[in-house]
Amino acid sequence: MPSGVMAQNIALLIHSKQKQQQQQQDLKSQQDVTFACHHTSHLLLHEHDAFTHLLQMKKPLIISTANEYDKTNGIHVPPARLEDVMHTFESLEQQGEDNDDATKVISTLILELPHREIGGKCTPWDDVLQIKQFLKDQNIAFHCDGARLVEAAAGYGLSLPEVAQPFDSIYISFYKGLDSIAGAMLLGNKDFCDEARIWLRRFGGNLYTLLPYAVSSWDGYRKHTLVDDDDDMTSTTKIVSFQEKQRKLTRIVQQLSSDAVVKKCIAFDPPTPETNMLHVYLKASKEHCEKARDETMIQTNIRVFHRIREVFSKGHPACDIGNFQCYLELTMGDGNVGLEDDVFLEGWKTFASCLSKLE
Amino acid sequence: MPSGVMAQNIALLIHSKQKQQQQQQDLKSQQDVTFACHHTSHLLLHEHDAFTHLLQMKKPLIISTANEYDKTNGIHVPPARLEDVMHTFESLEQQGEDNDDATKVISTLILELPHREIGGKCTPWDDVLQIKQFLKDQNIAFHCDGARLVEAAAGYGLSLPEVAQPFDSIYISFYKGLDSIAGAMLLGNKDFCDEARIWLRRFGGNLYTLLPYAVSSWDGYRKHTLVDDDDDMTSTTKIVSFQEKQRKLTRIVQQLSSDAVVKKCIAFDPPTPETNMLHVYLKASKEHCEKARDETMIQTNIRVFHRIREVFSKGHPACDIGNFQCYLELTMGDGNVGLEDDVFLEGWKTFASCLSKLE
Repeated sequence: MPSGVMAQNIALLIHSKQKQQQQQQDLKSQQDVTFACHHTSHLLLHEHDAFTHLLQMKKPLIISTANEYDKTNGIHVPPARLEDVMHTFESLEQQGEDNDDATKVISTLILELPHREIGGKCTPWDDVLQIKQFLKDQNIAFHCDGARLVEAAAGYGLSLPEVAQPFDSIYISFYKGLDSIAGAMLLGNKDFCDEARIWLRRFGGNLYTLLPYAVSSWDGYRKHTLVDDDDDMTSTTKIVSFQEKQRKLTRIVQQLSSDAVVKKCIAFDPPTPETNMLHVYLKASKEHCEKARDETMIQTNIRVFHRIREVFSKGHPACDIGNFQCYLELTMGDGNVGLEDDVFLEGWKTFASCLSKLE
Repeated sequence: MPSGVMAQNIALLIHSKQKQQQQQQDLKSQQDVTFACHHTSHLLLHEHDAFTHLLQMKKPLIISTANEYDKTNGIHVPPARLEDVMHTFESLEQQGEDNDDATKVISTLILELPHREIGGKCTPWDDVLQIKQFLKDQNIAFHCDGARLVEAAAGYGLSLPEVAQPFDSIYISFYKGLDSIAGAMLLGNKDFCDEARIWLRRFGGNLYTLLPYAVSSWDGYRKHTLVDDDDDMTSTTKIVSFQEKQRKLTRIVQQLSSDAVVKKCIAFDPPTPETNMLHVYLKASKEHCEKARDETMIQTNIRVFHRIREVFSKGHPACDIGNFQCYLELTMGDGNVGLEDDVFLEGWKTFASCLSKLE
């Protein structure tokens, strides 16, 4: 498929139509079908509410963990866990019949692995399996937003087939960790894929050719998933596995977290990486962070980040409690994994030192 | 945009939402908004009824010229003309209020230039201008399915700006005559394009990069539209203009049409090309046509066609009246325009001769 937005819209439509057909047999055809997802889902944040405007679905059931931040610093919001899913569905049931929310029929639960918007955290694997069972009992489809599924599998220490097993449908992306130029894939059983091909046409997604993306995606997939199998590798570039990327990131974060100067102005979310990425929270203004970055570059020739974002200040606990004003996403990828650990340590320590002089 | 299917769906949504907003002011918010198009429109034939299933629109208002075939041979169905548009809208008005069709509100008229499914025929240009005025009076958007708009412009003897002028929005394709690997463009005024960008995201059409298609499309567009301006051409390949392609096709068709053996089993639709393409109708079975093609190749080393389609026999006038069992699309493109006229003439005359021996 050309993109993940399209792939996941299509997955939702297929699961919803199926649910609608089942519901009609119970004479509940008037009920609207929608889906459930974590409050940081890509569908809620980055798709111009396509689920409403294009898919004509009600507002989704939101599994929110937004208030479960660390009370000492306002960060460390958890991913969707079994308890969060159970609690959300129980609340739905307890709402009165007059309540618009209570009339929702949920066709699908979307679980993002890893949760990108909260630093690549993963739902505990036991929870994934129990959520699967819970959904099966309720006849709700389990869809995986696996934009970074290969990274998640590495984080869990599972194979791709193992991590795919609990889901009814999965979307994976090829242009993130797998380093393709673009491209996505939607996976499910045969009936699901047959339906998906029809929807792909309706969305205008079956291009005259996808060759440039297909070649690049296949290349990236092979390089990154067959990485330990040298016989299958024709590339001369040695790709570092996602496990090794995560281990390297973990080493660096552990050392930085015990540094007194760094600790004063920087926190990592999660404190220990669950995949090859995390968020870096900074107790300084965007302007000061960029100044310190540039000063670090002059002193060490190391540029510690490219882009930094402001924490939305008003009422955001990371700002109100922890006094964090900015954050950035730090990923250990093909581009930076080749650098020595010491380069990261020197860069971030110098940055923290520069920052402390500015604040 | 990645594809024409997506581009035209988006155009319809934008025009429909605008119409809906206008209608709501007149307290007609319950009325469904849909569109009008010729009975051979791509949207009716090749998109799995996306207008119903994805766009949630009513069945479109169909401008049918299907019964206006040549009574002597069952072919030569005309394109949508002013009279057809007027007649269709008048019929809609005359229908009673109880009729579901009569409650349709038409947001958009889609006009395909040229009409691909009937051999590249073009709505007479005066009709296009008068349809524009008619739609303007009714506050209906005029959208051009310009998958082959550059070819249509050549057929009309108009420049691209001239042929674009009457329309509120236009889709053009880059991978047909313009020879890109894939890619499309949707054009309209600034507000329209701003809206289109939001819908592009909702459809999952704003890929991480469109570079391979963008490069190829820009290259094809330059080569084919700046063809007379040698200073702007860096390519060493001399591209033959669409005008010249049409002239060549016209010469060949004229000569073949006056050949006694050819005339017996072959008819061209339209009789004189209106663009660089047309349909070839054959009074023989698919099996015989393919045999004659292969025999022609043995005798002359010329392969006259690649793919042939069966005329849907039951009740199709081309079959019932004209006894045509098959047809094919013949396009004069970059790949075959370099051949001498005599190659086409020898090939088709030999083919007709082979076919006459089989029937």
